[in-house]
Amino acid sequence: MSRTLPFSKGHGTGNDFVIVADEDGLLQLSDDQVEVLCDRHFGIGADGMLRVVRSTAIAAGEGLDAEWFMDYRNADGSAAEMCGNGIRVFLHYLLESGRLALAEGETVHIGTRNGALPMRRTPRGYEVDLGVFTIEPGETLVRVRGLPVPRPGQGVDVGNPHVVVALPTEEDLADLDLTVVPHLQPTPAHGANVEFVVPSDPLVRDGVGSIRMRVFERGVGETLSCGTGVAAAAIAVREWAGPSAPERWEVTVPGGTLGVRVAPVDGIPHVFLSGPATLAFSGEVALAEQPAPRSR
Amino acid sequence: MSRTLPFSKGHGTGNDFVIVADEDGLLQLSDDQVEVLCDRHFGIGADGMLRVVRSTAIAAGEGLDAEWFMDYRNADGSAAEMCGNGIRVFLHYLLESGRLALAEGETVHIGTRNGALPMRRTPRGYEVDLGVFTIEPGETLVRVRGLPVPRPGQGVDVGNPHVVVALPTEEDLADLDLTVVPHLQPTPAHGANVEFVVPSDPLVRDGVGSIRMRVFERGVGETLSCGTGVAAAAIAVREWAGPSAPERWEVTVPGGTLGVRVAPVDGIPHVFLSGPATLAFSGEVALAEQPAPRSR
Repeated sequence: MSRTLPFSKGHGTGNDFVIVADEDGLLQLSDDQVEVLCDRHFGIGADGMLRVVRSTAIAAGEGLDAEWFMDYRNADGSAAEMCGNGIRVFLHYLLESGRLALAEGETVHIGTRNGALPMRRTPRGYEVDLGVFTIEPGETLVRVRGLPVPRPGQGVDVGNPHVVVALPTEEDLADLDLTVVPHLQPTPAHGANVEFVVPSDPLVRDGVGSIRMRVFERGVGETLSCGTGVAAAAIAVREWAGPSAPERWEVTVPGGTLGVRVAPVDGIPHVFLSGPATLAFSGEVALAEQPAPRSR
Repeated sequence: MSRTLPFSKGHGTGNDFVIVADEDGLLQLSDDQVEVLCDRHFGIGADGMLRVVRSTAIAAGEGLDAEWFMDYRNADGSAAEMCGNGIRVFLHYLLESGRLALAEGETVHIGTRNGALPMRRTPRGYEVDLGVFTIEPGETLVRVRGLPVPRPGQGVDVGNPHVVVALPTEEDLADLDLTVVPHLQPTPAHGANVEFVVPSDPLVRDGVGSIRMRVFERGVGETLSCGTGVAAAAIAVREWAGPSAPERWEVTVPGGTLGVRVAPVDGIPHVFLSGPATLAFSGEVALAEQPAPRSR
């Protein structure tokens, strides 16, 4: 037995998502069903799933000042707090499907398990306020295949934990073998995503800092893009650059280019992430009620 | 500017395809467009594309005794002769979309660049007659990461070239690192797919031989399944097993299990491949008229 589920598929700088509209929160998808839907050979294929649900129709949305809630699930079906690329795709879907209207300059709050996050349109897509961030004290030593000696990494928390490592040249970046898990010392309690960055030359042009980056996501491997990782990378390089560092950054990942800026909200520095969002296709999928094969 | 293209997505043991119906051969897709459609992050994502076209509406179908032609394109947009898993998905699509009716026991010919191939229904899916095969003389030495010493391989041609290597145990099979290209000596002129096989214990049960296999496809890397590779693997093990070897084989690949049998047609041994075919979802995709980003 199977039933049919309408869906859309979208991506932000190559970080891709199955989008399912479930306004009234009636859809119960098991971890197994999400895993099969996200399987790139047997299902639709995606890094994760975005369920579009009213905040009033999901327990995690209780008390949030946001009409819509992004119920984000990883490709293995587990629930996740936030996804910096996914939330732009989520908002884009709301606008394209006519569920929401958003004028230039206007702010809308999107509900997540990290709270209701303010978003707005930008010339090249959408921007989300990721909130406050923490630059961790101390140093983490990072070993990875392709890097002849271990290098020091800077811990940055932007709601989830990151370690950012600077490399001298683009060749060093290209030479990294991210098919193997980087080794971190000391080992973070809950693991961390690891971002490898190369500053552009010059680092700052027209008041905007610029870096290139590759990322290893914990539990996933190398990805084309990681939104919170991009924010953490810009924050670390800004910290290293000292007091004269700019507040605006461009970060180029394998899947495209994202913008980061640091600006105070009520006197406290917040980090903002901006970038494009695309809907690639839409369709209907047979939803397996029985365990189905998968490729990972 | 973009226009919308309706499509279906299907797979045979995890080898997956975008299916586009174009009965009258009016659709011209550039290599670039196929590559983006097959991109797993920016497009729909697939190992290749199957265009469903009448044999009379495509030059390659001229003179073929087949109503329908499978115009197969690799994920990079290049045209290919045949695909042992794709042709089952192709036939399944013809039946499911009502373009063809096929009774149990009846044979239908599907046009390919390797000629019109006879197909029929089986209890677990579909069977295709891949035609004659050749067991190559001489030995090929195969080196691959994870295999401590080079091992001899058997060349088998089933319309495309394969080298089959026997391993003693399932642990040996699991230990192979197929992220690196196996080294073949002598080097085949046009390369070859390499199949690593482990015989089951006992090899034959109820008259059916059984093996496990992993495959490295030339120009692609490790895949979940390769139809012609499965046929080549069974032919090589049947050859090694000698005159008492069975004519029916079951080959288990990471994506599932396929059947192979050898039987004479007009007195000449042919190899037949059978297995399941599944349609996973259908939809509409925006067809980029301009170069678009991709992840490989």
